[in-house]
Amino acid sequence: MTDTWLPTLITATPQEGFELAIALSRRGVKYTQPDMETLQELRPEYANSADGLTAASQVIAINFQTVSAANKYWRG
Amino acid sequence: MTDTWLPTLITATPQEGFELAIALSRRGVKYTQPDMETLQELRPEYANSADGLTAASQVIAINFQTVSAANKYWRG
Amino acid sequence: MTDTWLPTLITATPQEGFELAIALSRRGVKYTQPDMETLQELRPEYANSADGLTAASQVIAINFQTVSAANKYWRG
Amino acid sequence: MTDTWLPTLITATPQEGFELAIALSRRGVKYTQPDMETLQELRPEYANSADGLTAASQVIAINFQTVSAANKYWRG
Amino acid sequence: MTDTWLPTLITATPQEGFELAIALSRRGVKYTQPDMETLQELRPEYANSADGLTAASQVIAINFQTVSAANKYWRG
Amino acid sequence: MTDTWLPTLITATPQEGFELAIALSRRGVKYTQPDMETLQELRPEYANSADGLTAASQVIAINFQTVSAANKYWRG
Repeated sequence: MTDTWLPTLITATPQEGFELAIALSRRGVKYTQPDMETLQELRPEYANSADGLTAASQVIAINFQTVSAANKYWRG
Repeated sequence: MTDTWLPTLITATPQEGFELAIALSRRGVKYTQPDMETLQELRPEYANSADGLTAASQVIAINFQTVSAANKYWRG
Repeated sequence: MTDTWLPTLITATPQEGFELAIALSRRGVKYTQPDMETLQELRPEYANSADGLTAASQVIAINFQTVSAANKYWRG
Repeated sequence: MTDTWLPTLITATPQEGFELAIALSRRGVKYTQPDMETLQELRPEYANSADGLTAASQVIAINFQTVSAANKYWRG
Repeated sequence: MTDTWLPTLITATPQEGFELAIALSRRGVKYTQPDMETLQELRPEYANSADGLTAASQVIAINFQTVSAANKYWRG
Repeated sequence: MTDTWLPTLITATPQEGFELAIALSRRGVKYTQPDMETLQELRPEYANSADGLTAASQVIAINFQTVSAANKYWRG
């Protein structure tokens, strides 16, 4: 992937930071399986599974730790 | 999701911080599966499973690390 | 839950901190499944399973990181 | 458990710190399942399973993060 | 492995840092299973599995925490 | 285990730090299952399993966080 998709970890608000954490989690998947068609086919496998959704939420939580620290927790 | 649901990570007490950690964990799930009906159907799958509940508690624990650090552990 | 169960993360000793980490881990479960009867029924599922016990110990470890940092590791 | 088993997180060496991390991981299990006979019976379930051993090593790694930070990494 | 593959954790941008996190995640696998042919054979097992992809993304997220801290989050 | 195997967390380079993280991950396994023959028998179970390799890589990633912090990320 040669395009720029992550110029900074800084966001204006915690909510945008959470959304960046989601984007990072998806990128981790896409780097491992770049074929979009395969990814689409796998979607029901986790989006309709309680375990799969909890696991997805955990990766987001880990990335949100990173983004929050980068933004010094938006303490203002 | 265009509404504001996370204006700040700062809470008055550790307990409110823990509840925010729960909210973050649920948001991670909702961003991945926005369909509320599907989420309702999946609820028994983890809420009645020991593994599912431990996994849910783990995501909360990770998010509580973030919220606690943001609040400097409410050391007062 | 409207009662106050987490007024502070500060404890007198590391051992009390570890016990608080256990309490936090259980709270994460209870917020997800508030029905005490269901929780009692699920207990054998993890308390008699090696995987379940390791998973429980992991959640405690994550919460103990938070409590330890809050207490500056009881360095005295 | 009313005996004192964790008076401090400080150890003389990284290796003792690693052994404390192991002790913490086992305590997490024992608090969840205090019956020693059951624990003995479950031992083969994880000690003879690759997944179980990796999971055990992960809990140790998480607790070792805590102990290492407490000891400022024994930088001397 | 005697070649130098990790001279530094410092990268110019967050995106390069994320790519380094991916490289670290793969190295962790290669050190455990150095046989490239076996690794190739196992690829479909996780790259075509929702759980496998989420797990891979989680390891990347953990390594990205390390790389981000090393780079002081590229705060500039 | 009475021999000294972890005198320090300090390494000269990030790569040596990564290798120390691998050593710590293996030690966590060996403390749990000290019988080398059993460990040898279990090896194919994870080294030929995608899930097992990802899990191994995750433990390494967690230990690498510790070693990297100990070395202040080799910022030089």
